[in-house]
Amino acid sequence: MASVNEDFLNLENDYLFSIITNKKNEFEKNNPDKKVISLGIGDVSLPLVPVVIDAMKKATDEMAKKETFRGYGVVQGYEFLIEKILEVEYKKRGVELNKDEVFIASGSKGDLAGVAEIFSKSNRVALMDPVYPAYRDVNIMLGRNDIVYLKGTEENGFIPEIPKEHVDIIYLCSPNNPTGTVLTKEQLEFWVKYAKENNAVIFFDSVYEVFIDDENIPHSIYEIEGAKEVAVEFRSFSKLAGFTGVRCSFVVIPKELKLYTKSGEKVELNSLFKRRQSVKYGAAPYITQRAAEAVYSDEGQKEIRENIKYYKENAKFIKQELEKLGFIVYGGEHSPYIWLKTKNNMKSWDFFDKLLNEAGVVGTPGVGFGSAGEGFFRLTAFSSKEDTKEAINRIRNIFKK
Amino acid sequence: MASVNEDFLNLENDYLFSIITNKKNEFEKNNPDKKVISLGIGDVSLPLVPVVIDAMKKATDEMAKKETFRGYGVVQGYEFLIEKILEVEYKKRGVELNKDEVFIASGSKGDLAGVAEIFSKSNRVALMDPVYPAYRDVNIMLGRNDIVYLKGTEENGFIPEIPKEHVDIIYLCSPNNPTGTVLTKEQLEFWVKYAKENNAVIFFDSVYEVFIDDENIPHSIYEIEGAKEVAVEFRSFSKLAGFTGVRCSFVVIPKELKLYTKSGEKVELNSLFKRRQSVKYGAAPYITQRAAEAVYSDEGQKEIRENIKYYKENAKFIKQELEKLGFIVYGGEHSPYIWLKTKNNMKSWDFFDKLLNEAGVVGTPGVGFGSAGEGFFRLTAFSSKEDTKEAINRIRNIFKK
Repeated sequence: MASVNEDFLNLENDYLFSIITNKKNEFEKNNPDKKVISLGIGDVSLPLVPVVIDAMKKATDEMAKKETFRGYGVVQGYEFLIEKILEVEYKKRGVELNKDEVFIASGSKGDLAGVAEIFSKSNRVALMDPVYPAYRDVNIMLGRNDIVYLKGTEENGFIPEIPKEHVDIIYLCSPNNPTGTVLTKEQLEFWVKYAKENNAVIFFDSVYEVFIDDENIPHSIYEIEGAKEVAVEFRSFSKLAGFTGVRCSFVVIPKELKLYTKSGEKVELNSLFKRRQSVKYGAAPYITQRAAEAVYSDEGQKEIRENIKYYKENAKFIKQELEKLGFIVYGGEHSPYIWLKTKNNMKSWDFFDKLLNEAGVVGTPGVGFGSAGEGFFRLTAFSSKEDTKEAINRIRNIFKK
Repeated sequence: MASVNEDFLNLENDYLFSIITNKKNEFEKNNPDKKVISLGIGDVSLPLVPVVIDAMKKATDEMAKKETFRGYGVVQGYEFLIEKILEVEYKKRGVELNKDEVFIASGSKGDLAGVAEIFSKSNRVALMDPVYPAYRDVNIMLGRNDIVYLKGTEENGFIPEIPKEHVDIIYLCSPNNPTGTVLTKEQLEFWVKYAKENNAVIFFDSVYEVFIDDENIPHSIYEIEGAKEVAVEFRSFSKLAGFTGVRCSFVVIPKELKLYTKSGEKVELNSLFKRRQSVKYGAAPYITQRAAEAVYSDEGQKEIRENIKYYKENAKFIKQELEKLGFIVYGGEHSPYIWLKTKNNMKSWDFFDKLLNEAGVVGTPGVGFGSAGEGFFRLTAFSSKEDTKEAINRIRNIFKK
């Protein structure tokens, strides 16, 4: 009898951001005259940069002609893009990787899910708390319910605490979603050493690395000696180049990274992931990969960095203004996220409702990212300058009293 | 200790089509003067049609402007596309579906994998033999090793035989890959009845439905009364509109389709799949969905059907010419696939080597699709007219003696 994978029943009914969208939609329905400003979901507002648009049109033209049409791509991704990634993202930072260690795909969500399923169900996972909810949900779907939460608190600067028990997989996110904090070189060195000593693997999510402003903060975990043996790195063009609606990502799986079999042998994660992609994914679209390639041209780098500068100015502005209102604020530097502490121990969802109902501003309740996020609230810097200013004005009006 | 999901070790080392590509590449390396013609992998050769190109460029322009830029899409897919699918693919055939029963995504591989993981690991799967290898690989990765193979043979016209034991999930593919055969209305009625009586679910893969030439052969399993309770349907724009390099698909999961929990309750597959997509997939790209929408305009329908006609003529030609050479040939009607029986009981891989080495033509060994495919060979109609003709000339030269 066709029956359900019961692991799916352990998920909470709704994905956090779906709940927020529903609340926003309901408010808008009941208040058709009020313009709601969303500083909630981390979606970008600036359009694609000209270099990317040109590349997409050129690639579209190629798809229109028999001589230049491209059908099924290659599982790993096109070399023209992988070579650019190796050069700009890694070689320039002193990291040497091979072409077959990078996989192009359609978004980090899919990559995070795809890599996680190649690990044993019995592996114990350590997640930060607060945490990007997809990390947790993916593992619950895989039947990994024994999750260890590494608390990030004001006291430890929202850096994940060291696990008290043995863990096999450690998720790290820097710059962090939701807290906006970053891991320093020394902290990453600690985690790489920890992973080696514990035969653990680090899932390093650095999709926000382009926001880093301090040259001493690593953009890639492979800037740390020995990380190739213990870390997978997830990257995306979503925030780097505003590809949230285009969909392009890559994941780095060094050949040195091996997983144990029950009989004590070692197998390459890289080749298993490639096998997995060939069956479950296929290949990223040609036009998308040309668009991503364009990001790495000199002009492309200039253009995307102007957009990032725009968002960074928003982040700085939000942080400053909230501090003027007496809020304790984390993030907002090296990150598009502002993590604020509510006042008078107000609960995260109460703060959400207050902001939505009184200011028409949507943010994300900290507790939605885990219990350690209770009493906190996340705002993002991805809106337009005008909307960000207007949102802050409205917030000022309800909190200045 | 980070360890491997041992189910992945039960996979054969290489995906069938990767082996073929490697063999082809090696031959080309050793015979740089010979032009190899591939009638192997089912990739299209005609470029995207003008209506699709125009839609993509228009959508790209929208992505270049702040006012019309689109970031993250909606999990289910944009309504503008879903509405067209409901109208053209279903309503016109008398099938009523709701908007929230269709999910847009980036290729049927991902959809087949995504739906399969929501079923219990203990569910017994029935696959045809011969079979599209991704069906098998997906289930092996999920730990379902107890697979029942439903043999398709010359004797039964390559229609899957009825399972001798109870099965929970039945994969049907019509028009069939690799055999090119189709299931009639009566045969589908049998399977729907069978699924109901056995509390089983049918995964109906009809990605080649556009090749059907006979109005009596169903394009959708929902043309069969009661199928909504027991069938998921997989569709793709890859063959329909040459989107192999663009990536767009959809899957239909009717609300009526319920899975049992251990405690005997029933849960909607539809809502679990939506939850799954929100965590593991995200949403299909905006430009891609506009491209797919254009396929359903009057002009789009005209243009894609011209391309399909072109491939159908190839199929007919290959079939005719092979029959003239004394081959027994299946498929080639209602299908882009030609399934030929080798002569003198030659093994599939021997036939592959002969064709590659003596004619410089690449096809797919029948045995690569399962043991029932031994002694058979698949050719595809997706090459250009010129290449198809040339390939047949070369085949004629080695077999006319």
